[in-house]
Amino acid sequence: MTASFDTLAAFRAVLADAPAADLTAREQAQARNGQLTKPPGALGRLEDLAIWYAGWRGTPRPALASPQVLIFAGNHGVTAQGVSAFPAEVTEQMVLNFQHGGAAINQLSTAFGAQMAVHAIDLDRPAADFTQSPAMTEQELVAALRTGWDAVDPQADLLVTGEMGIGNTTSAAAIALALFGGDAEDWTGRGTGVDDAGLLNKTRVVREGEALHAAAITDGMDALRCLGGRELAAMAGAIARARSLRIPVLLDGFICCAAAACLAKTQTGALDHCAAGHVSAEAAHPRLLTALNKQPLLSLGLRLGEGSGAALAIGVLKGAIACHSGMATFAEAGVSEA
Amino acid sequence: MTASFDTLAAFRAVLADAPAADLTAREQAQARNGQLTKPPGALGRLEDLAIWYAGWRGTPRPALASPQVLIFAGNHGVTAQGVSAFPAEVTEQMVLNFQHGGAAINQLSTAFGAQMAVHAIDLDRPAADFTQSPAMTEQELVAALRTGWDAVDPQADLLVTGEMGIGNTTSAAAIALALFGGDAEDWTGRGTGVDDAGLLNKTRVVREGEALHAAAITDGMDALRCLGGRELAAMAGAIARARSLRIPVLLDGFICCAAAACLAKTQTGALDHCAAGHVSAEAAHPRLLTALNKQPLLSLGLRLGEGSGAALAIGVLKGAIACHSGMATFAEAGVSEA
Repeated sequence: MTASFDTLAAFRAVLADAPAADLTAREQAQARNGQLTKPPGALGRLEDLAIWYAGWRGTPRPALASPQVLIFAGNHGVTAQGVSAFPAEVTEQMVLNFQHGGAAINQLSTAFGAQMAVHAIDLDRPAADFTQSPAMTEQELVAALRTGWDAVDPQADLLVTGEMGIGNTTSAAAIALALFGGDAEDWTGRGTGVDDAGLLNKTRVVREGEALHAAAITDGMDALRCLGGRELAAMAGAIARARSLRIPVLLDGFICCAAAACLAKTQTGALDHCAAGHVSAEAAHPRLLTALNKQPLLSLGLRLGEGSGAALAIGVLKGAIACHSGMATFAEAGVSEA
Repeated sequence: MTASFDTLAAFRAVLADAPAADLTAREQAQARNGQLTKPPGALGRLEDLAIWYAGWRGTPRPALASPQVLIFAGNHGVTAQGVSAFPAEVTEQMVLNFQHGGAAINQLSTAFGAQMAVHAIDLDRPAADFTQSPAMTEQELVAALRTGWDAVDPQADLLVTGEMGIGNTTSAAAIALALFGGDAEDWTGRGTGVDDAGLLNKTRVVREGEALHAAAITDGMDALRCLGGRELAAMAGAIARARSLRIPVLLDGFICCAAAACLAKTQTGALDHCAAGHVSAEAAHPRLLTALNKQPLLSLGLRLGEGSGAALAIGVLKGAIACHSGMATFAEAGVSEA
């Protein structure tokens, strides 16, 4: 059993106590990689990925057999500011679509052999409009972190977290602005597809929201409470739980990375067990990945959320681990070296 | 049964007679894509990929269930010029490794559910050193094209072609220089890892080889005969056969693309059924993809050959098709549109 928490202070302590990777396993994996039947470095990033994964799993020859995809849904009071191209009721409609197997993430989870679950969090109680007040109370934040924490399967060997929440790119942009500075324009994008006027309005909302709460924000948890939403908090909770279980994580797009950034800006190194699954078409995602010092595995113009880009990257990670753990060494195969 | 050939002229005629995609199926797939439960365009390149695949398979809601990976191996007399970091015997040793399941491509084929076969082509009769004479006679070229042609499983619904052949990046560079012009330096890279002096020597070999045969090269088939090798010819034959069967192809790295370029420079549009699986770390691959007007799906620094990058991209294509064919429409799911 890993430690849990019932206050925000306790959650911060959990982050501070998080385990590191197994350096011995990582070194053994590195040594194995150098003996495999290929020119040195010829599998490129697949080699680094497999070694990283081996370190977190604590074995030099790991398998990836049980990935888990967790989708969290939440509603956002800030939709009252007209920040989305879609009506807020779509959050709940899409939850039903997830439950009935009709969304993109259902197909991707099946395609890559992942178990998938969706957690709709208090859809009838949207996070507060953060241009008026903090998005959540501390109690609400802790409850949402716990929802994510409790949702992780300790038997999983990889985690993907995704989200659904009309209005949540606005929330993510405000968080990024609060955590990394710059201008509201740097972090605000078109989300599901607002027009030029909508983008201007959304940028105003991000600027005003961040300005209202700037003085109250001293770390990532404050930013998550003031500007986030329940599904972002649940993703953060799930990513933290994965760390406590040494389950590697593939990060999804802009909103997932904003939630993850709240961990990184609370505890240095909190995302060392995470790799970036993809870079999305949401305008500020490349900037956010740079701020997190993460290089994406895929760049295919996705901007759907739902964990879709990270789920697609499960395939890349599976390929990397299959090569690392399954290939013959030069000695085993009787192949001459350079 | 599709047409076959026993002369190079007959193969050129086969290319000229190749079938086109099914435009009706493609339009129906495009219409379906617009109704799926996601914002328009939110799956980025996955949407284009699925529609492209649907057109070639002739159905608006295709499945990808039976990918085939074909590896062709050949030896190259040009290794006498000292162009590779590895000894020529490695070609045969790696063929054994493929047969025993120990290479990267074995693991990737298994990971993505592909049937895989390796065809070692006359390893005891290397293609001639192209700095001295044409690499192959017309008869040898036709035989190698036929090896590839005959290896394609008509029941496959996707083809990946890969190669093994010490010395074959030199051959590929000379082909690219002959087909697309520029300088030998533009097309010559480090292959499996030659040092600076090796790279200079390899560049000289590419320059001299191309110069020797320039007058004899009027199309891609001439370039393949004068500067290619049996495994490159077999890849070209397999890609052509896939076209005749409307089986889409994922292209692998520099050598595979050089072989494919010989088709494109013999018959315009000959690669319309092909997508670029990845861009490799071999220095000239980006330039070659640009010349072929193909955008790679993956960019992960691979430079192994064996079809490894394209095999990894099977996962991306599987994800794209799973979403396209499996997702609910807005009407089916009762989700509000923008």
